[in-house]
Amino acid sequence: MPELRQNIITREWVIIAKERARRPDQFIRPKKESDPLPQFDPGCPFCPGNEAMSAAETYRVADRDGWKVRVVENKFPALSQEGDRVRRVDGVFRSMSGVGFHEVVVENRRHDLSPALYSVEEFRTILGAYRARYMKIRKDPRVEAIIIFKNHGESAGTSLVHPHSQITATPIVPTQIRHRMDEAIRFFDETGDCVFCTTLRRELADRHRIIASTDSFVAFIPYAALSPFHLWIFPVRHCSSFDEIEEYEITDLAATLRTVLGKLYHGLNDPDYNFSIRSIPAREGQREYFHWYLTVIPRIVRTAGFEIGSGMYINTAIPEESAKFLRDVSVD
Amino acid sequence: MPELRQNIITREWVIIAKERARRPDQFIRPKKESDPLPQFDPGCPFCPGNEAMSAAETYRVADRDGWKVRVVENKFPALSQEGDRVRRVDGVFRSMSGVGFHEVVVENRRHDLSPALYSVEEFRTILGAYRARYMKIRKDPRVEAIIIFKNHGESAGTSLVHPHSQITATPIVPTQIRHRMDEAIRFFDETGDCVFCTTLRRELADRHRIIASTDSFVAFIPYAALSPFHLWIFPVRHCSSFDEIEEYEITDLAATLRTVLGKLYHGLNDPDYNFSIRSIPAREGQREYFHWYLTVIPRIVRTAGFEIGSGMYINTAIPEESAKFLRDVSVD
Repeated sequence: MPELRQNIITREWVIIAKERARRPDQFIRPKKESDPLPQFDPGCPFCPGNEAMSAAETYRVADRDGWKVRVVENKFPALSQEGDRVRRVDGVFRSMSGVGFHEVVVENRRHDLSPALYSVEEFRTILGAYRARYMKIRKDPRVEAIIIFKNHGESAGTSLVHPHSQITATPIVPTQIRHRMDEAIRFFDETGDCVFCTTLRRELADRHRIIASTDSFVAFIPYAALSPFHLWIFPVRHCSSFDEIEEYEITDLAATLRTVLGKLYHGLNDPDYNFSIRSIPAREGQREYFHWYLTVIPRIVRTAGFEIGSGMYINTAIPEESAKFLRDVSVD
Repeated sequence: MPELRQNIITREWVIIAKERARRPDQFIRPKKESDPLPQFDPGCPFCPGNEAMSAAETYRVADRDGWKVRVVENKFPALSQEGDRVRRVDGVFRSMSGVGFHEVVVENRRHDLSPALYSVEEFRTILGAYRARYMKIRKDPRVEAIIIFKNHGESAGTSLVHPHSQITATPIVPTQIRHRMDEAIRFFDETGDCVFCTTLRRELADRHRIIASTDSFVAFIPYAALSPFHLWIFPVRHCSSFDEIEEYEITDLAATLRTVLGKLYHGLNDPDYNFSIRSIPAREGQREYFHWYLTVIPRIVRTAGFEIGSGMYINTAIPEESAKFLRDVSVD
C-alpha cells in the first residue's frame, strides 16, 4: 500500500508511491549526446575577459588572474534596486512596487566546469561571496527576505551555461516563508524545541536517510521527501540566518556540498537540480524556533496536475533507498 | 519597475516582470515536428476494443458504439482503495496509510483528438462523468479531498497520449487546501463576503482580464497570475463543491471550457497545460466563504530555484495583455 508522510517543517503531505516506486538506479540520467562545452566562450558574459558584457559588479574575490568569483547585478532583474516600497490596496487588488535585489554569482572562471567538480576551496570562495552579499543586502531596510538559489541544467531553468547562482531579495515576506515560520513557532510552543534541531537529532539517531556529514553539517533525504533524491543539508549548530555562518562552518559546508553534488553527479549522471538556502526573514534576528538550511531538488521528474491541484507530491522513490544509494556513491 | 501583485485567494505574491515581459505572441509554441497520431492505436489501453487492457471500470456513458466516456481505476494507483486510514505518529515522523481513490477518465474514443476540439456535447459528457464519480467518491468516509485534474502534453506530465483526465481522493486535507480555507474564512470574517464572489464582481467590473463568459461561468486571467496565461474559470453562482453543479451549469461550463481551451489551442499553438478543479474538502458542506473553481495552467515556462526557494513566481507576461490576446482569438 502507498504511504503518506507528513513533512513536519511545512505540514505538507507527500505520497510515497511504494507500488509504483522505481529502484534508485532507474533514475540515472541517460547519457547526454551534446558536444562538450569549451573552457572559454567568447560570447559568454560571465567568461574572463568579457566582464564589460555583464551589469555592474557588486563583489569580487580577486586573485592574480583577476578574479575567482564575481557578483554582478542581473542584467534583466526581476526586482529593481531603485525606488521605495509603495503598497497599493484597492479592495482585492493588492500590489507593491517591485523593489529589491537580483544579483548573479559567477562561481568560476571556467565556462564548462560542473559545480560537482569544484574543489572544497572553490566552494568556500562561493559561500563566502554569498555571505558577504547576504550581510550587505540585509542592511537595506526595504528587504524582507533574501533567497539564494542555483539552477543547474535546462530543466532546472538555466538559461546561461556558465556556472552561476543567484541572490534575490524581496520587499515582502513570501507566504511560503511565513507559513514555515508559523509552523516552527507552533512546534516550539508545543515542545519548547526547534523543529529543525529535533528533526536532525531523530535523523542522526535513525541513520537510514543520512547521506553525508561533517562536524557542522548533515546531509540527508527528508523522511517526507517530495521527489526522488530531494535532500536537505542542515547546520548542526542552531542558527536562524545564513549570514551568521562561521568561518569553520563555511569550510564544512563547502566539503558537504562538494560531497553531495558529487554523489548526484557521479551516481545519477549529472542530473539537473535546483538548490536554495532557506533563512529566517531579513528583519528577524536569531530565534529559538527557526533554523536556516539548504535544500537540493534534483529535477528528475515533472510535477503535474495532481501537484497543482492539491499541493501534495507523489514521490516514486523511497527515501531510505535513495539515501542508501547516494551513501554508496564514492566521490573521490 | 517590476510590480508585485498579491493573489487575494492564497495571499501569495507574484512578480510581474514588466521590463522582462514578452509580448503575448512571443509565447506561441513553435511548430511541432512530430508525426500526426493515429485515430486508433492497437497498443493503447484507452482505445475502443482494448477495454480489457485497462483496470476495473467504475463508470461508463454508453452509446450505440459501446461508450462515449469511460472511467476506470488507475492501473498503477498513487492511492489504494483497500484498507483503513491508519495514522502513525512517532515524534516528527508522521505517516498514514495511503488509502484513497485514483481513477482515469477516458474522455473520448478517439486516440488523437485534442480536447480543444471536442464539441460542447462531448465536454458535457465528460463533466457529467466527473460529477457522477465525485458524488460517489465523496460518500466514502475515508475521503477528505477530491482533486480532478488533467495533464495535457509531455511537459504537463502526460505519459499516455489518449485524451484522459484523472480523479484522485486523498485521506487527508492537503495543506494547500487548508491554507486556502483559512484565507477564505479570514476574508469572510473581515468583510462578510466570499472572497471568490468579491473577486469575480471586481473582475467583471474591470473587464481588463476577462477572456470569455456565459450566464453561469466567467473565464479570466487572475490579477496576480502566476505564469503566462494562467487562468481561472469561476462559477457565477456561489457554491462550495463541484459536485453540486447543476445541469444548466454543466452546459455552460462545457461551452466555456471549449472556448478557453480552443483559444489556447488556436492562439498559442496547442500548448501543454494542466487543469484542476478546486473544491471545498469532502467532509465540509456548503459554506458561505468557499467557492469551487477551475484553474488552467499552461506549461509555457519552467519554474526554477527562485520559485522553490520563495514560493513566489515571476511572471513574464502581463495579465491584461494575455487576456486581451486570448479575447481576440476566435475559436469557431
